[in-house]
Amino acid sequence: MIIENIKSPSDVKRLSTKELKQLAVEIRSLLIKKLSHHGGHCGPNLGMVEATIAMHYVFNSPQDKIVFDVSHQSYPHKMLTGRIEAFLNEDHYDDVSGYSEPSESDHDHFVIGHTSTSISLAGGLAKGRDLKGDKGNIIAVIGDGSLSGGEALEGLDWAAELNSNFIIIVNDNQMSIAENHGGLYRNLENLRKTNGTCPTNLFRAMGLDYIYINKGNDIESLIEAFNRVKDIDHPIVVHINTLKGKGYELAEKDKERWHWSAPFDIASGELLHPFNAETYDELTTSHLLDMMKQDNTLCAITAGTPGIWNWTPERRKEAGSQFIDVGIAEEHAVALASGIAKAGGKPVFGVCSSFIQRAYDQLSQDLCINDNPATILVLWGSLSTMTDVTHLCHFDIPLLSNIPNLVYLAPTNREEYLAMLDWSIDYKEHPVAIRVPVGATVSTSRTVPTDYSSLNKYEVVERGKDVAILALGNFFSLGERVCRLLETQGIRATLINPRYISGVDTSLLDSLVQDHRLVVTLEDGALAGGFGEKIARHFGSTEVKTLCYGARKEFADRYSPKEFLAANRLVDTMIVEDIGNLLPLH
Amino acid sequence: MIIENIKSPSDVKRLSTKELKQLAVEIRSLLIKKLSHHGGHCGPNLGMVEATIAMHYVFNSPQDKIVFDVSHQSYPHKMLTGRIEAFLNEDHYDDVSGYSEPSESDHDHFVIGHTSTSISLAGGLAKGRDLKGDKGNIIAVIGDGSLSGGEALEGLDWAAELNSNFIIIVNDNQMSIAENHGGLYRNLENLRKTNGTCPTNLFRAMGLDYIYINKGNDIESLIEAFNRVKDIDHPIVVHINTLKGKGYELAEKDKERWHWSAPFDIASGELLHPFNAETYDELTTSHLLDMMKQDNTLCAITAGTPGIWNWTPERRKEAGSQFIDVGIAEEHAVALASGIAKAGGKPVFGVCSSFIQRAYDQLSQDLCINDNPATILVLWGSLSTMTDVTHLCHFDIPLLSNIPNLVYLAPTNREEYLAMLDWSIDYKEHPVAIRVPVGATVSTSRTVPTDYSSLNKYEVVERGKDVAILALGNFFSLGERVCRLLETQGIRATLINPRYISGVDTSLLDSLVQDHRLVVTLEDGALAGGFGEKIARHFGSTEVKTLCYGARKEFADRYSPKEFLAANRLVDTMIVEDIGNLLPLH
Repeated sequence: MIIENIKSPSDVKRLSTKELKQLAVEIRSLLIKKLSHHGGHCGPNLGMVEATIAMHYVFNSPQDKIVFDVSHQSYPHKMLTGRIEAFLNEDHYDDVSGYSEPSESDHDHFVIGHTSTSISLAGGLAKGRDLKGDKGNIIAVIGDGSLSGGEALEGLDWAAELNSNFIIIVNDNQMSIAENHGGLYRNLENLRKTNGTCPTNLFRAMGLDYIYINKGNDIESLIEAFNRVKDIDHPIVVHINTLKGKGYELAEKDKERWHWSAPFDIASGELLHPFNAETYDELTTSHLLDMMKQDNTLCAITAGTPGIWNWTPERRKEAGSQFIDVGIAEEHAVALASGIAKAGGKPVFGVCSSFIQRAYDQLSQDLCINDNPATILVLWGSLSTMTDVTHLCHFDIPLLSNIPNLVYLAPTNREEYLAMLDWSIDYKEHPVAIRVPVGATVSTSRTVPTDYSSLNKYEVVERGKDVAILALGNFFSLGERVCRLLETQGIRATLINPRYISGVDTSLLDSLVQDHRLVVTLEDGALAGGFGEKIARHFGSTEVKTLCYGARKEFADRYSPKEFLAANRLVDTMIVEDIGNLLPLH
Repeated sequence: MIIENIKSPSDVKRLSTKELKQLAVEIRSLLIKKLSHHGGHCGPNLGMVEATIAMHYVFNSPQDKIVFDVSHQSYPHKMLTGRIEAFLNEDHYDDVSGYSEPSESDHDHFVIGHTSTSISLAGGLAKGRDLKGDKGNIIAVIGDGSLSGGEALEGLDWAAELNSNFIIIVNDNQMSIAENHGGLYRNLENLRKTNGTCPTNLFRAMGLDYIYINKGNDIESLIEAFNRVKDIDHPIVVHINTLKGKGYELAEKDKERWHWSAPFDIASGELLHPFNAETYDELTTSHLLDMMKQDNTLCAITAGTPGIWNWTPERRKEAGSQFIDVGIAEEHAVALASGIAKAGGKPVFGVCSSFIQRAYDQLSQDLCINDNPATILVLWGSLSTMTDVTHLCHFDIPLLSNIPNLVYLAPTNREEYLAMLDWSIDYKEHPVAIRVPVGATVSTSRTVPTDYSSLNKYEVVERGKDVAILALGNFFSLGERVCRLLETQGIRATLINPRYISGVDTSLLDSLVQDHRLVVTLEDGALAGGFGEKIARHFGSTEVKTLCYGARKEFADRYSPKEFLAANRLVDTMIVEDIGNLLPLH
């Protein structure tokens, strides 16, 4: 294979056109094989094979610097920049991350995983180059729905002020993760239809030069285009028309399904390890869809990620105008929800923990200062869901729970979650966020209240003495296990389900002081700025000691959840050991 | 005066054209009088007088809903919607806020103070209207530099998908606070030059209908235009060309100076109460400008607010390409700084505490995960600077100090600040944020280190026993006063300057356990998620008690700083009283 001899981009430059085309075939074949075994981003990588080869044929990376947006399409780039072993050899699949990673190669400049950042980051490289008097091409690659994100649009607008080389490659595959939303994509469509000539042109309106390449999966066209813009003395947009999923028929046909996939059978496309239990995400969407049929003021909002809570194309169609995909635009989604709530509608914005942080100011200003009763569902918030450093779901508690007016709830089981969800939709006093439990649903035999309007009232599940365990949300079951272990040592601890992440039940906590010596907090997220610290502050002036459990302050990356929990002593036996060390057990 | 008889917009509708013009004259005169006595936003309000009259003449507020971006231009709207007393009568000047405020009037729909939010918020009102089957016009007013903010661009893009009435009035006054930056403003300029006809059109490229009104300060033209779009069945942009500061000659001439002003003499424009002491903002900029002359890789970045750290037009000119105003685009600013640092430049982004929260995801993802050594200067972070609810500077500590990799410093005086600033610019290990002290500079006789690379080493300023005071940043002087008061009661407390907001000096804190019974933390910001809670967590498992001082969790609004501090017991005598209650003083 040609690909086996590509040690660096200079090896690409030596190939003939025929060999470059053969290289594309080989890359695609290796991609499909690795993806089927390992899982990963399918459509984005398959669509960018030719453009990546052409970039490395024309530009001189790493002196010329390529910055990939989201960087979920940078597998072909990794293959051509000295990392082919991680695609050839199954034992080395995990040697590289699924995103760009400077620690792997000088050809990667940033760790990138969130969308819409490449223009600004690459813009910084261009400005830094100019300040230092350096040379070289700076190339930002963006597409796949990322253009609708505020940061990308801010970057496009700013780019026009840079009087020097800057090349923005817009990978127009006509998709986001799902179908695209927003007026700008209509403009891209018109540009495609007119071969880039229609007078209405977003990029020119942003002050940028522009060329259009219709054959975005044709290496020769791309090489010709990149040669035209190489060493250009001003910013330019190169709009290329590509096919998402190209070369894997199933992915070309159902682009949304094949944006990302867990390991699959290549022939049938079936998942190798399907997850058949009911999840909280699935429960949410089926429940909301049922409710929508009874109430046409209820609406669900997503920011370009309907799939993460099972809003399939069929269900979106069923929900009609009550389902709103704003595209990748979390800031707009939060403000929109605030406005809908103000107008008397019932908005429910579902968003991954890692992405809600893209809208902190909107949560604070547009939503919470205005105290409008929207519902925010924070999905996947846990130390055990996504483990890539750019997709950690550790930080939503510090971020949301410290915003005044926001009620942030942590249900512990299926029944409590549904009760909280129903309550939040009709509650009119404050905005409510719910940290949706993760994984398969778990039922309880405990009675669950339907009204959560008496804010910050924790639930005492078991009343003991000496030790109290405040076991938040996903970690309620860990709290139960700790209690069972303590019991074997003669301690009957108090077990509390705090329910409210955003408030302290001061009267309950004060009542613990008389017969408790230690309060333990358990939270499935970052410790710094989180729930436990508020409890520690509350007990600071008392005789009661506190131990807070959660993740220490760090950007962990590609970890084993089990090992990570153990490293943070988030294991029942370790917690009991710590309690014993602090408080001699009888 | 006509204005005295305007009790509601229905009174505007009864006026003749001649009377409407007279009304504009009266509004302008009252505006200038109130602004000169009271201070406030001058240019934005003076420019929007005619458009506001015309909106209320044509539309039927509050059934038709007008949402003002930033809402710093809504004074004329307040005058026409039942709140004229607050502009006629000096004793009632403070009856209304400087921003839109639903608690004042049904004609205001949101509390708004940050930029770039009106399209999304009004879009929510429009979508809510449609879900409920209601009627009415929804009008978003945006301009004055706000269009470059990501949220506004996300909103514009989304608006095209709304198949119903939505009117976006773009108030094009050719300015931001300072001059506009970004390619889109070149497009607005071309649209003005061609009377709205040039084929390149940002709004059409975003999928929106569009009309242009050249005479944006002519009531008749505006009425004609608004009548054309009233009850329209789809989204449309009405681009109006206005004169910022119109009617006050000084403000028309120097638009940047007169965006906002403290009380002034109308004839001369001189401030009535000039502040002549050296401020930290002034110190920062003069120092950076000196350094830039020695190092052409050093650059200062602002997101549309050069004035808040005294980057005057003259100084910007002097700095040349080493000064970057990205326009109102905080997300881009942070990512740009990360990119510049990656390329080997030395970026310093200066940003108001209230606005850094617009870029949390960029701080976390673009900057801190990548660990690029940019410097962020957080200006005005304090409970005693801005007191409008939308501009509180309380939350930067919870927001920044919990992000891994970021070193967040709290200097306590002039010398320490400059040493930290110099160090941060050359430091290459991590990004550094500095909470710039507020107010007039204060010098110290203490020796100040020049190297802060040994992270999280607190400074023990006075070593006592029993009680330790951790007095952070601006509150170091409060800590000193508490120590002096404790001394009069026979307690020689330990006084500590923590210096690092983002880390805990565990070995120092552990050394306190042997001879201290109480640790007190003082921080000039919100308590929840802040510095003190980390200290409380650290001491949770020890015999040492903790008391944390800062602001309780709330969105305070238009408060007297002195009263607010007292309500939070942030007064030396109160703190000593609390210490005495907890720990019997000898």
